[in-house]
Amino acid sequence: MTVTVPADVISRLKAVLGEGGWSQDPERLAPKLVEWRDRWSGTTPLLALPRATAEVAAVIGICAESGVAVTPQGGNTGLVGGQIPQGEILLSTERMRAVRDVALLDDVIVAEAGCTLAAVHEAALEKRRRFPLSLASEGSATIGGLVSTNAGGTAVLRYGTMRDLVLGLEAVLPNGEVWNGLKRLRKDNTGYDFKQLLIGAEGTLGVVTAASLKLFPILASRAVAMAGIDSPAAAIQLLARAKEEAGGAVEAFELMGRRGVDFALKNIPGMRDPLADHWPWYVLIEIASGEPGTAEAAMERLLAKAMEDGLVRDAAIAQTETQATAFWALRENQSAAQKPEGATWKHDVSVPVSRVAEFLDRATAAMEAFVPGCRVTAFGHVGDGNIHYDVIRPEGGDNAVHSARRDEGSRKVHDIVAELGGSISAEHGLGAMKTAEALRYKSPVEVEALRAVRRALDPKRIMNPRVLF
Amino acid sequence: MTVTVPADVISRLKAVLGEGGWSQDPERLAPKLVEWRDRWSGTTPLLALPRATAEVAAVIGICAESGVAVTPQGGNTGLVGGQIPQGEILLSTERMRAVRDVALLDDVIVAEAGCTLAAVHEAALEKRRRFPLSLASEGSATIGGLVSTNAGGTAVLRYGTMRDLVLGLEAVLPNGEVWNGLKRLRKDNTGYDFKQLLIGAEGTLGVVTAASLKLFPILASRAVAMAGIDSPAAAIQLLARAKEEAGGAVEAFELMGRRGVDFALKNIPGMRDPLADHWPWYVLIEIASGEPGTAEAAMERLLAKAMEDGLVRDAAIAQTETQATAFWALRENQSAAQKPEGATWKHDVSVPVSRVAEFLDRATAAMEAFVPGCRVTAFGHVGDGNIHYDVIRPEGGDNAVHSARRDEGSRKVHDIVAELGGSISAEHGLGAMKTAEALRYKSPVEVEALRAVRRALDPKRIMNPRVLF
Repeated sequence: MTVTVPADVISRLKAVLGEGGWSQDPERLAPKLVEWRDRWSGTTPLLALPRATAEVAAVIGICAESGVAVTPQGGNTGLVGGQIPQGEILLSTERMRAVRDVALLDDVIVAEAGCTLAAVHEAALEKRRRFPLSLASEGSATIGGLVSTNAGGTAVLRYGTMRDLVLGLEAVLPNGEVWNGLKRLRKDNTGYDFKQLLIGAEGTLGVVTAASLKLFPILASRAVAMAGIDSPAAAIQLLARAKEEAGGAVEAFELMGRRGVDFALKNIPGMRDPLADHWPWYVLIEIASGEPGTAEAAMERLLAKAMEDGLVRDAAIAQTETQATAFWALRENQSAAQKPEGATWKHDVSVPVSRVAEFLDRATAAMEAFVPGCRVTAFGHVGDGNIHYDVIRPEGGDNAVHSARRDEGSRKVHDIVAELGGSISAEHGLGAMKTAEALRYKSPVEVEALRAVRRALDPKRIMNPRVLF
Repeated sequence: MTVTVPADVISRLKAVLGEGGWSQDPERLAPKLVEWRDRWSGTTPLLALPRATAEVAAVIGICAESGVAVTPQGGNTGLVGGQIPQGEILLSTERMRAVRDVALLDDVIVAEAGCTLAAVHEAALEKRRRFPLSLASEGSATIGGLVSTNAGGTAVLRYGTMRDLVLGLEAVLPNGEVWNGLKRLRKDNTGYDFKQLLIGAEGTLGVVTAASLKLFPILASRAVAMAGIDSPAAAIQLLARAKEEAGGAVEAFELMGRRGVDFALKNIPGMRDPLADHWPWYVLIEIASGEPGTAEAAMERLLAKAMEDGLVRDAAIAQTETQATAFWALRENQSAAQKPEGATWKHDVSVPVSRVAEFLDRATAAMEAFVPGCRVTAFGHVGDGNIHYDVIRPEGGDNAVHSARRDEGSRKVHDIVAELGGSISAEHGLGAMKTAEALRYKSPVEVEALRAVRRALDPKRIMNPRVLF
């Protein structure tokens, strides 16, 4: 769907944005029109580069009046094509990157949409505070995008997703009006919580221009361990024990299969096998606590007892920061490590934690029957029931053949997820990629309600029209 | 506003509810038509007592078709009149009180709307888990009402409000359709998070019929202390230190003034002065940790250092469960202790934590100028910036005279709250009582958006029509 934007609208947009506030230069536009994995590319008649919320409002106001569609874009790290325009005006927040405030007594940081997650981490650390959301693309991913996709990452188990970390938002609504909801309150029950609609709306209900976010204390003790186990079922048992043993102090609980570890050793320079022997599955556990020494003590108790019971086959607790970083690097490179292995069907799914093992068993049986010789690698935030479930073509197989069967294969995975009460998009969102697929699994009652809300707030459907229902 | 409900609608409702499923008996209705503080009373042509979600759907479906309004009611513990019908059909969830599931590996409890909070606590404890939401009315308050008002209470500092604890909802929407969103996922990004609209909607967007809620481990160590301090500013400094010292393990941080302590000693049997001397202000601190002994150690370090620095003037750490209970009883009786003192203007407000001291100074100066001799008592969840700010008539003053000036006085308090970026309803909601007042402070942009959402989902405005915008 490519729409022609009237020339007078383009002129008006240029006028409100001023010198340096827009571009039509193909070289300037190019990196914003291609997704980093090259799965999505797009076009736009104009890149709008507002410097301030008032300019965003002016842009959206003109678009609303003339019924011209807009795609907002942050760091362009999205994985589902939501940020790539197909003929719409492209509104980038790259010039809105101020940290407006770090308020210690409130434990709040206020950052503009274009701030990277890494910049927020740094601004917090300078004041001896921590913003816990953490994910691989944090050097590029921006606050506006992270809010709009309700980003997850590795610390959700303890701190929740972006939704749980937002205290207030400032946004430009689809009618071009500025909503100043940039509160920093821990409690506020005065009607529907409007910011909740914008969080995870993937830019369809307005443009998030700034957010006030919760900060946390820096914890005094931290322990990182890698454990070799026999099965995902053992991982789930170990998770329950870890939560009990550490009393809410489990920061991360990540699962990887041996195949993924092998790919990392083979394809990523500098990786080392984490344990002396090979095990079918691995979990990376991080515990952190305010009390010096207690994270380490809890980790030791947990692993000693679990090894005694045979639940854990072998384990290593990182003795240095370097070793902890190496354990995490193995986990964080799981996705990159697959790349040289050829065409892959990727899935970002979640199921109730208790169903993770059943999901893996059923999905892998289905995949191996559907594509004999395919190589499944599964890894992810098992503490949240969130599995990145990837199906790589058979060794020596043909990439094009494998890619051609993606939709049919993914459907089988998603059907199993749905049967187990899961989600076909745990953390990446639906974007342009999964919206149609999601319609298969959502109840019509819910879809109709969500559409009614969208129509009420954006009657001309100008905001990211290709995305969501 | 009293509407006459057509006789044929009443007959149809009786038919779908069946024997025992409805009442028009004035004695049966009476306790549901009066709020426990006697500030609100109402009328209804029919009390509907559905046993199951399908019956709720049948009732709402008939009401939607005929444009007849409905007020849902849980435990009737609301403080702002939202649950008291004024001529609408009254739908009580009292017969829907099953705990449907307690799933240990998922750390989830699924409870029906009419379950009391105390029953959920018990069901969790039986399986060695904890549901952390806690408030004074937990023996009567029900899950449906707690979700619909986004309840807060004493553990928000660590665990958040009800919104943070809900993983999924089942509800009947204003069109009479059942929305089954009873998921138990920690991550699910597949479009707008519809349950967020229902949480805190005070029954205006449908009837919550069941919820799946997060469970937490029971913590191994717990320390409760009472500290005497000079000022609210000292409390805020101490809070920041406590968060740092205990590394996220602060469960509660509650403030009380000496006047409130005096009222409790005078008016509530069995209360004892918590410290040897009198101090202008008191904070009750609770720290809890998964590691045996560490909560106590963190509390001791915190208080020793703060006494050395003069931030805390005196303090006692509870040595027994009985002593801890006594400290909490003093806090929990703050509201009851005022009752014999005469007419009171009550306010449930929040401000950013850093502005609590400024709020108290300014509001109290304004009140003492407005009603010379009035007795202000302030207490509450200062860790969340949430103050229950009460203005009692002068000693020996006239109750009626004081009550007559309530609106004018409260307006002054609310204006100060608004100037400090606060909320005029931190945890109680708006109900019938505060909706008009809230309209003074909400931006028109937000009010219009919220109204558009409501119109989209309930075009005939049949759900709790007197409540919210």
